[in-house]
Amino acid sequence: MKLYSFFNSSASYRVRIAMALKGIDYETVGVNIRIGQQNELKYRRLNPVGLVPALITDDGESLGQSLAIIDWLDRHFPQTPLLPNNDPARMRILEIVYAISCDIHPINNMRVLRYLTDELGVSEEAKQRWYAHWVHQGLSAVEQLLRQSPAGQFCVGDAPTLADCCLVPQWANALRMGCDLSGYPRCKAVYESCSALPAFVAAAPENQLDKIPA
Amino acid sequence: MKLYSFFNSSASYRVRIAMALKGIDYETVGVNIRIGQQNELKYRRLNPVGLVPALITDDGESLGQSLAIIDWLDRHFPQTPLLPNNDPARMRILEIVYAISCDIHPINNMRVLRYLTDELGVSEEAKQRWYAHWVHQGLSAVEQLLRQSPAGQFCVGDAPTLADCCLVPQWANALRMGCDLSGYPRCKAVYESCSALPAFVAAAPENQLDKIPA
Repeated sequence: MKLYSFFNSSASYRVRIAMALKGIDYETVGVNIRIGQQNELKYRRLNPVGLVPALITDDGESLGQSLAIIDWLDRHFPQTPLLPNNDPARMRILEIVYAISCDIHPINNMRVLRYLTDELGVSEEAKQRWYAHWVHQGLSAVEQLLRQSPAGQFCVGDAPTLADCCLVPQWANALRMGCDLSGYPRCKAVYESCSALPAFVAAAPENQLDKIPA
Repeated sequence: MKLYSFFNSSASYRVRIAMALKGIDYETVGVNIRIGQQNELKYRRLNPVGLVPALITDDGESLGQSLAIIDWLDRHFPQTPLLPNNDPARMRILEIVYAISCDIHPINNMRVLRYLTDELGVSEEAKQRWYAHWVHQGLSAVEQLLRQSPAGQFCVGDAPTLADCCLVPQWANALRMGCDLSGYPRCKAVYESCSALPAFVAAAPENQLDKIPA
């Protein structure tokens, strides 16, 4: 399989974690979204949405959308299941997943931040405030959800799930953007538990072959 | 069951469609997000995320996030299944679902538009351009995905699925905001097929008890 991915893309990072947790071998093809490679025709032919990541399966099928890809992986590679079928765990995991992937990440991703500065003339400082605002709104909610969740090292229970695949990239992104994350001790504890696992280390942006030096 | 909902909220509308397609009886509790009722303590106790909708089950459990609620409904009320287990239909449905619920809706919802005007001082006209920009980016992708999808009256095949639960509210919202949608004939055909079904009519904003006159 081939994963079209960008080292610093949160959505790519989610899929890399899922593949590493499942021990799936794949080849990475870097798509440099900073210079717009996701809009080039050869990539659009694979993924008409023009966003990373995209997975090309061994059958040559092209799959887009990080959460849809992980759903596919979880069905075709059932080892280390990432989303149990039973309540309440499944429900709690999905609430956290969507609190991050719908309520934080889309508002703060690169194309939106670029629109703010390039089209609306928003200052760098106001852009940082925007970023921090949605991180704080969203992580406050996630922190509450974690408090209601079964006790354990990870978002929901004692093994990583889809929720952790979403939280870790979001947390890493917020750290990189310099947000004060001291108000979210449960999120932090989960991030630290995950960071101790080889799968999360292997999936981290700094360990990707397509990494661009800062 | 009780659904905490706002008549014009796309996320609430998705859940209303799912419940109507399944023929589930429920009581609607209006949460007026225009005046901030979603931030009041009594609502936050039900849904710490502070967004609509929230579903209170007959067991008194509170569930947030429209896509997580529909996942729960689909497992507990298996009539009219909204997400098949088999590829490629499941994969195509989820790609469309996330192209709307992650790539369009979060960037254009009310709290984000308000931040643009109230915090960043963006003009009404620039706000409309912002809205239309993300609608066009997103619907172009959805239109492509529909072209690749199995022929049929609905997003994927000949029965409504989770993809239609997401497309119809997004399309209705874009119409209400005055977007030119002439470039998306497949999306339009799906919207029209859905609009002919009683379940979609029952779920529409204009038919909700909590509707606020324009």
